Amino acid sequence: MGFIVEGEEGKDVVMEPPPNFSMVEEGIYRSSFPHPCNFAFLETLNLRSIIYLCPEPYPEENLEFLRSHNIRLFQFGIEGKTEPSAATLKDAIRAALKILIDVRNHPVLIHCKRGKHRTGSLVGCLRKLQNWCLSSVFEEYQHFAGIKSRTADLRFIETFEIICLRLCLHSIIYQYQGYGSKKRRLLYREETAQKPQITSI
Amino acid sequence: MGFIVEGEEGKDVVMEPPPNFSMVEEGIYRSSFPHPCNFAFLETLNLRSIIYLCPEPYPEENLEFLRSHNIRLFQFGIEGKTEPSAATLKDAIRAALKILIDVRNHPVLIHCKRGKHRTGSLVGCLRKLQNWCLSSVFEEYQHFAGIKSRTADLRFIETFEIICLRLCLHSIIYQYQGYGSKKRRLLYREETAQKPQITSI
Repeated sequence: MGFIVEGEEGKDVVMEPPPNFSMVEEGIYRSSFPHPCNFAFLETLNLRSIIYLCPEPYPEENLEFLRSHNIRLFQFGIEGKTEPSAATLKDAIRAALKILIDVRNHPVLIHCKRGKHRTGSLVGCLRKLQNWCLSSVFEEYQHFAGIKSRTADLRFIETFEIICLRLCLHSIIYQYQGYGSKKRRLLYREETAQKPQITSI
Repeated sequence: MGFIVEGEEGKDVVMEPPPNFSMVEEGIYRSSFPHPCNFAFLETLNLRSIIYLCPEPYPEENLEFLRSHNIRLFQFGIEGKTEPSAATLKDAIRAALKILIDVRNHPVLIHCKRGKHRTGSLVGCLRKLQNWCLSSVFEEYQHFAGIKSRTADLRFIETFEIICLRLCLHSIIYQYQGYGSKKRRLLYREETAQKPQITSI
């Protein structure tokens, strides 16, 4: 946990997370579009990558932040205003999910513009992969979307086929880990073989 | 991350987190009151303790779940309906915070009844300890409280003196940890001396 109790020179640094910020899982965060005032906070997350769900180019100052912190950007351009076709959306979300669940990309921040619809849809599909019941998935989506909740997003999440994703991930094995006996995590074969230390992050 | 892709006998287990469930930080979760339908989900968190913020006795079936999973219960009885005196509330929250930030109690779940006011106040004070700016602290509180947001809680969080808590925690040292150079965590001296492995959870 990042308890920044004193700044680098002993001075307090006030942390400003982006609006709609939250931790999704160990190593997975979500938020609205981060601005320079949020960079000091983002530094405390030690991000390895960012999943950006809008088609607009990433601003230069954000790219500079990424370069200087060695953070990799994965962009999946999903239209925010006009409703994307179901097939396009499904392809983008499936591709983003593959990046998201790969622990080699963690810690990862997911964001779109407001952190409501596109981010909410991706997190919703992740929850389905984690076998959350649909009412809990919807409750979480609505938490972040608030009054802007969209029925089309809920329908998308509900009908998203995770079995297909599971079949795609044929190179992934399951492995128990952590100090409890019940905790599992997805790991790639090559990761297990070459970099076992990465599992203890 | 607990990807339960298949159940113990190869069957899918549907996970039902308690309403208002969320991850606060690595090893810290929050929710409303968990019921037996949520126990399968709670198992995946490998909890070491629960911080319960209501005065009502813990139900027998919940106590049985705690016993069988070796989870320690820390109860701080804060009245939900009648407004507790500021001094009583401050004492309870301060005591709960000390338990909360002690990594030896992690993973820990904080809950009250609805996961809105008492839980929100405790998490709000934790965020202040993490130097979050007040508007972000309030935004998070309001996320979970929704239309039930209480001005008295926001005022309590705003005026809660964390400097006092920092002074109380004289036995705690700060230590860099994680694979990034900027990540810090609070650790007790004895923990560092006796059980260094606990720092890699």
